[in-house]
Amino acid sequence: MFAVDHVSHKFDDIIQHKIDQKTKPKGALGQLETLAKQIAQVQLSSDPKAKKLHITEPGLLVFAGDHGIAQYGVSIAPSEVTSQMVANFVHGGAAVNVFCRQMGFNLEVIDAGVLAPLGLKGVTEHRLGNGTAAIHLAPAMTLEQVKQGFKAAHEVVERHVLSGCNLIALGEMGIGNTSSAAAIMAALLEFDVNTCVGRGTGIDDKTFALKKALINEALKLHRPKLASPVHVLAYLGGFEIVQMTGAILAAAEQKILVLIDGFISTAAALVAVRLHPAARDYLVFAHESEEQGHKLMLTHLAAQPILSLGLRLGEGTGAALALPIVQAAVNFYNDMASFEDAGVVNVV
Amino acid sequence: MFAVDHVSHKFDDIIQHKIDQKTKPKGALGQLETLAKQIAQVQLSSDPKAKKLHITEPGLLVFAGDHGIAQYGVSIAPSEVTSQMVANFVHGGAAVNVFCRQMGFNLEVIDAGVLAPLGLKGVTEHRLGNGTAAIHLAPAMTLEQVKQGFKAAHEVVERHVLSGCNLIALGEMGIGNTSSAAAIMAALLEFDVNTCVGRGTGIDDKTFALKKALINEALKLHRPKLASPVHVLAYLGGFEIVQMTGAILAAAEQKILVLIDGFISTAAALVAVRLHPAARDYLVFAHESEEQGHKLMLTHLAAQPILSLGLRLGEGTGAALALPIVQAAVNFYNDMASFEDAGVVNVV
Repeated sequence: MFAVDHVSHKFDDIIQHKIDQKTKPKGALGQLETLAKQIAQVQLSSDPKAKKLHITEPGLLVFAGDHGIAQYGVSIAPSEVTSQMVANFVHGGAAVNVFCRQMGFNLEVIDAGVLAPLGLKGVTEHRLGNGTAAIHLAPAMTLEQVKQGFKAAHEVVERHVLSGCNLIALGEMGIGNTSSAAAIMAALLEFDVNTCVGRGTGIDDKTFALKKALINEALKLHRPKLASPVHVLAYLGGFEIVQMTGAILAAAEQKILVLIDGFISTAAALVAVRLHPAARDYLVFAHESEEQGHKLMLTHLAAQPILSLGLRLGEGTGAALALPIVQAAVNFYNDMASFEDAGVVNVV
Repeated sequence: MFAVDHVSHKFDDIIQHKIDQKTKPKGALGQLETLAKQIAQVQLSSDPKAKKLHITEPGLLVFAGDHGIAQYGVSIAPSEVTSQMVANFVHGGAAVNVFCRQMGFNLEVIDAGVLAPLGLKGVTEHRLGNGTAAIHLAPAMTLEQVKQGFKAAHEVVERHVLSGCNLIALGEMGIGNTSSAAAIMAALLEFDVNTCVGRGTGIDDKTFALKKALINEALKLHRPKLASPVHVLAYLGGFEIVQMTGAILAAAEQKILVLIDGFISTAAALVAVRLHPAARDYLVFAHESEEQGHKLMLTHLAAQPILSLGLRLGEGTGAALALPIVQAAVNFYNDMASFEDAGVVNVV
């Protein structure tokens, strides 16, 4: 349902030359140079005559959803906390609110399917159900729900793009969703569950063992039916993860940048890239979280995360925090003097 | 000449409690929590009744100086580039200008002693000489010049503080100054020169070997006279490094935060902390650079750098880029809702 093209490489030499003529030794801005190159590739692909790079009306989408598996004691918090945190988002008191205000993100909170409807003003209602089924007992959702989730996410992204947004960041809230993300990772990368499962926001040894056991059960139960990445979402996913996958693909279809947050959104990115490998060109990875398995997924996606601050909160907090670095890459590319401009000897 | 006190630990429990009551799992904001705690310690030490943390009028000081050793072929660029880059700073075209504009830093460029006076409007003239002597042949400068440099830096910092500044970031420009910084590191940490010397902005194997040989000569020549950290500065330092050390101590004396940039400013920090161990309490380390030896100095200073972007440019670019993360620590501390405020179940 998405048409995703690779970025153009027609301008690569021009881009690299422009970066190398800036008044600095070649490569001295490290990862900022890689970022600037990627952003230039993305933006010149849709507008080959663009003279400047730019980030406009950045949008941060927080998708919330509940998970049946959370009823079986795999998390430190009960499912109710998902809805409580959605209310916190709406009232502006969560970490992601604070960071969005600071960084200039337009924050949108989407109820992708928490336990029960919230009826809260300021929440986009794109509910796929009252939480997913427990994945160790049943498929998380139907293929129809996945399709519905993609469509809903497409709508949200399109609305932002029409308002002038050219960077979408992703965040999530969902008690139990590290279990779903780990199961998706194990299914798609064919890694052992132990490698993929971490302690989420901080569970103890007993809970950790149970979490691993239930995810193993889920994989044993569904593995034969995982015919495609869409099936992986249906059998093991979460409503918020489905919509994040859809949002990534919708943004890539629109040729705009996507800022990926932590473990959960990286799992969504993994599904998106399996569905449309060209989507990878549009992805910027904001940070490496504390969650075990995140590093492995990042490596698999050849991702070089911007930050590594030991975050394990989700909500899109890492994505929000990384925006100034993305903006700095844009700014040095646009505004730094060249050796010629500045009358500086170019020795490299 | 500086009176530096440790921060107060009287409020540590209150600070930690405030952080732990925010609507997030305990510790989930990782390094931001450590940062917030440090900032709170610093700011409550000077104003125990402060209700909010704040960063006001952040100042980024770029100290420029030339190095006699650069005449002996240890760098990719000739000494003239130092002055050319100072002109670039004044005209707003360098990377540090771009990042200061983005992050809201008040940038001040100080000529601490480049080859010849520049007479450029917009440069603070605090020249200690026309570049240092080549350290493998003679002392870099006199003890009197070190003292004069401390005084000059003190003046600059005091002026910023009087204008409402409560965070000073440090940057530098000086062809050849990684040689001086590596020599200082080797002298103070008693490491082998090979461990301390890196490729600066990107020298080839032959130049690298020469650089190591000359720094070894410098250490052999001066080691018996290095009676104190001030002597280390006089025999092996640079005019910009001396003034950066002075700026750190002046800021610590004023109980304000100091944001340390890369290899050179970390060497200045090392000297400052050897002179006044309490200065460490005020230091925030912006990034881990590509320069070999930087990681070792950071470890020695028990520093957890904020960014790791493979930068090797200096100028204070890493410090400028790290400010939004420092500000984010302040903002979550001030503005996030507590569990009680938000009606969220506190399960940790």
